[in-house]
Amino acid sequence: MDEFAVETLAEPSLSDPVLIEGLPGVGHVGKLAAEHLLEEFESEPIRRLYSEHFPPQVNVEDGRAKLACAELHAVEADDQDLLVLTGDHQPQESTGHYRLTDRVLDIATELGVDRVFALGGVPTGELIDEYDVIGAATDDGVIDELETAGVEFREDQPAGGIVGVSGLLLGLGERRDLDAACLMGETSGYLVDPKSARAVLEVLEAAIGFEVEFDSLEERADEMEEVVQKIQQMEGGQQATDDNLRYIG
Amino acid sequence: MDEFAVETLAEPSLSDPVLIEGLPGVGHVGKLAAEHLLEEFESEPIRRLYSEHFPPQVNVEDGRAKLACAELHAVEADDQDLLVLTGDHQPQESTGHYRLTDRVLDIATELGVDRVFALGGVPTGELIDEYDVIGAATDDGVIDELETAGVEFREDQPAGGIVGVSGLLLGLGERRDLDAACLMGETSGYLVDPKSARAVLEVLEAAIGFEVEFDSLEERADEMEEVVQKIQQMEGGQQATDDNLRYIG
Amino acid sequence: MDEFAVETLAEPSLSDPVLIEGLPGVGHVGKLAAEHLLEEFESEPIRRLYSEHFPPQVNVEDGRAKLACAELHAVEADDQDLLVLTGDHQPQESTGHYRLTDRVLDIATELGVDRVFALGGVPTGELIDEYDVIGAATDDGVIDELETAGVEFREDQPAGGIVGVSGLLLGLGERRDLDAACLMGETSGYLVDPKSARAVLEVLEAAIGFEVEFDSLEERADEMEEVVQKIQQMEGGQQATDDNLRYIG
Amino acid sequence: MDEFAVETLAEPSLSDPVLIEGLPGVGHVGKLAAEHLLEEFESEPIRRLYSEHFPPQVNVEDGRAKLACAELHAVEADDQDLLVLTGDHQPQESTGHYRLTDRVLDIATELGVDRVFALGGVPTGELIDEYDVIGAATDDGVIDELETAGVEFREDQPAGGIVGVSGLLLGLGERRDLDAACLMGETSGYLVDPKSARAVLEVLEAAIGFEVEFDSLEERADEMEEVVQKIQQMEGGQQATDDNLRYIG
Repeated sequence: MDEFAVETLAEPSLSDPVLIEGLPGVGHVGKLAAEHLLEEFESEPIRRLYSEHFPPQVNVEDGRAKLACAELHAVEADDQDLLVLTGDHQPQESTGHYRLTDRVLDIATELGVDRVFALGGVPTGELIDEYDVIGAATDDGVIDELETAGVEFREDQPAGGIVGVSGLLLGLGERRDLDAACLMGETSGYLVDPKSARAVLEVLEAAIGFEVEFDSLEERADEMEEVVQKIQQMEGGQQATDDNLRYIG
Repeated sequence: MDEFAVETLAEPSLSDPVLIEGLPGVGHVGKLAAEHLLEEFESEPIRRLYSEHFPPQVNVEDGRAKLACAELHAVEADDQDLLVLTGDHQPQESTGHYRLTDRVLDIATELGVDRVFALGGVPTGELIDEYDVIGAATDDGVIDELETAGVEFREDQPAGGIVGVSGLLLGLGERRDLDAACLMGETSGYLVDPKSARAVLEVLEAAIGFEVEFDSLEERADEMEEVVQKIQQMEGGQQATDDNLRYIG
Repeated sequence: MDEFAVETLAEPSLSDPVLIEGLPGVGHVGKLAAEHLLEEFESEPIRRLYSEHFPPQVNVEDGRAKLACAELHAVEADDQDLLVLTGDHQPQESTGHYRLTDRVLDIATELGVDRVFALGGVPTGELIDEYDVIGAATDDGVIDELETAGVEFREDQPAGGIVGVSGLLLGLGERRDLDAACLMGETSGYLVDPKSARAVLEVLEAAIGFEVEFDSLEERADEMEEVVQKIQQMEGGQQATDDNLRYIG
Repeated sequence: MDEFAVETLAEPSLSDPVLIEGLPGVGHVGKLAAEHLLEEFESEPIRRLYSEHFPPQVNVEDGRAKLACAELHAVEADDQDLLVLTGDHQPQESTGHYRLTDRVLDIATELGVDRVFALGGVPTGELIDEYDVIGAATDDGVIDELETAGVEFREDQPAGGIVGVSGLLLGLGERRDLDAACLMGETSGYLVDPKSARAVLEVLEAAIGFEVEFDSLEERADEMEEVVQKIQQMEGGQQATDDNLRYIG
């Protein structure tokens, strides 16, 4: 294997597809959101990307081993074609992040992409009632558009910038003159957070123009709720806090 | 030295050899099992592989320094030729794992290999009475075959996937259309575990078709037993647990 | 993107420019000093340098994402042209430091630079009344000149040498026959330190020959003072020490 | 700068020189021993080796900055020419160790070297009365020779092998058919240890055939002795142990 190996799984014709990224990150918000799109719409994996920059690892499901990879899926979201990037791993090391993101953008632009949405979570450190979605973008026009769709752009948030593939899709995307934005659902950071994923998708619905059911995400949210309540009971009725919940990043 | 240096030590003609990997890992199960095959059958080292991806280290035995390496041995296991990969080190860093595994597969396929068994341990966190062997494979046909040989394939195990050279032999092996499986003996994770190595080898006997003596592994198991009992006595007769045993990984 | 990407933002003609480096480091002394020059004099960014050796990150300000980079600015400091290097990141890993510094020196020498000042802080571990500036240089002539300007050259300081881009500008600069010096303001190491930055700039004024206002740095110093006093009050009037202040490096 | 830059400082003609390595390590034994040879005999630096595999750092002495490097010195040890490798740094990362050692061996063989001694310390964890020197070598003939010179070759020591440039000089040296040995003075591991350096040099005297004065090493040993005694007094007369001494590695 070279530095990258790209498998072509299908060659559908896509009409002005929008790239949506949902690799693992804070609260697994981006991953949950991206996978929800695959489940709710017609979707098909079309490219698989292996790389020595991923961890040296196979995942195992029902005994079948699957080499660490990222996948691009063609998704029909009502009238809008999407190209959805999913996977179980971020690259290792700085150079791996840069090179993988560059390769993803090579493939995406070949397939006609000129708009990119990176999905993720922004940690607040406390459990959340109202799920705001914070944004960052490469272009003031995109910022205006997304503000209309309900995204908040704040003076100094996210404070630590955006790291990993999500961040580089914006940074390297801008250098290719792509319109790129990152949508970050607020999330405690302590739990896998389907409610934050829903908040991100609701913004995406408005921004791109499609409608999606949320029943299955709500079910997962209810399951998480039960987990939190059990933890709170074990802790003697206290509020779930930094001290008794594990950070998911 | 380039990135890799391969020494040819012998050129025996091998008939449909099966590659068996036993590099260091959890409970040293794979290493013990692979080395047991070298001891019990006619065996001969045929390739030595040096790499800048190994630690910058020589091992010393009786004053003789030996550069970190991996070795491929030709082994006659009754009627079945084996190619057994042993060594004292895993590569450093992600890219090192990918490149070393690729190089091993290059050599193995040149020598006629089209089946691969990676041997290892899966940590359970507690001392074990009955040593199950968990499996993962690249192909449903291989899974069926190995279930007959007594391997358990579980829905969600091993939970963290398989990392290191064992994992990549499956992941990169599949990309070369090799039939590859990983056999993981359950083991506490706290001790070098000859009993787990025996369990793995018993499955391998059934899967490949050979018979091997286990007396020397049993002797090592008895020695380990004594070590555990001494630790338990020092601890005032308590069960050996996470707290008083060191993890071997 | 290749290993580096250099954007040309402007092509002013510079007359014998001096390179001034102020990347992040101890007490952010160098960064504060370099940014103060940009604010107080006519300045213009002329080169932007991206690299896979920077962290895989975008910074976000008012919703606009900006890929990790370093920038070279043309600055008119009275009669002396400066080329000021700023940025929010040091490279990752050893090789990244060497290669980025080499690239910066390539650009600087193309633009006519033959003198380099790396600005930074040297941690003393305690809060400071009198801000001495410690020096290191590639050449005895430079040392004599800077001693006249008030820099102290000490037998065995800084004890741990100078690490990062500042250090390599001297090390690699000398190999290119550039006159290079590092000016390090003493600083506790626990706080962003505008007073130390002022001390460094006062030496630079004398060494290069320009005059700069310090009002805005003094304001920032006053703000920091208030922060320290608040911390001391919270701690019950104790002196601010290693135990209650965070190291800024 | 490329991956390596080699400066030629002098071109003396050397007669069958022996390479002696003394880079930093346990107790700085090898470094002390190598530097003692430079001081006691006629010596001259002949090659300076810079590399992006060293830390990104300059050392500073009396205000002069010096880029991280390794140096080869021509030394006349009575009738025997030596090529002595010194420096303040080990390379970073595995590949850096392999490549630097390879480069050193390229230069050494060009200069006519076919025998290598790597000098170092082996940590015992306790203060030492009698300084044994443990050996490792690439060849049984060398082992016999060194046993005569007083080196001990033990079945299972050093237990963790030999890491860093010392180890690779043996490992990579053997692959070039050089006779290479590592001489490791026993040392607590908690102190810079001139006595252990003397023990190593005494063995080297016998093995190579030269005589050297030890007065200056003895003075440094006396200074260290005073340091230890002061620490012991501060600790209320207790023996200096793991708890009150810092490990030097």
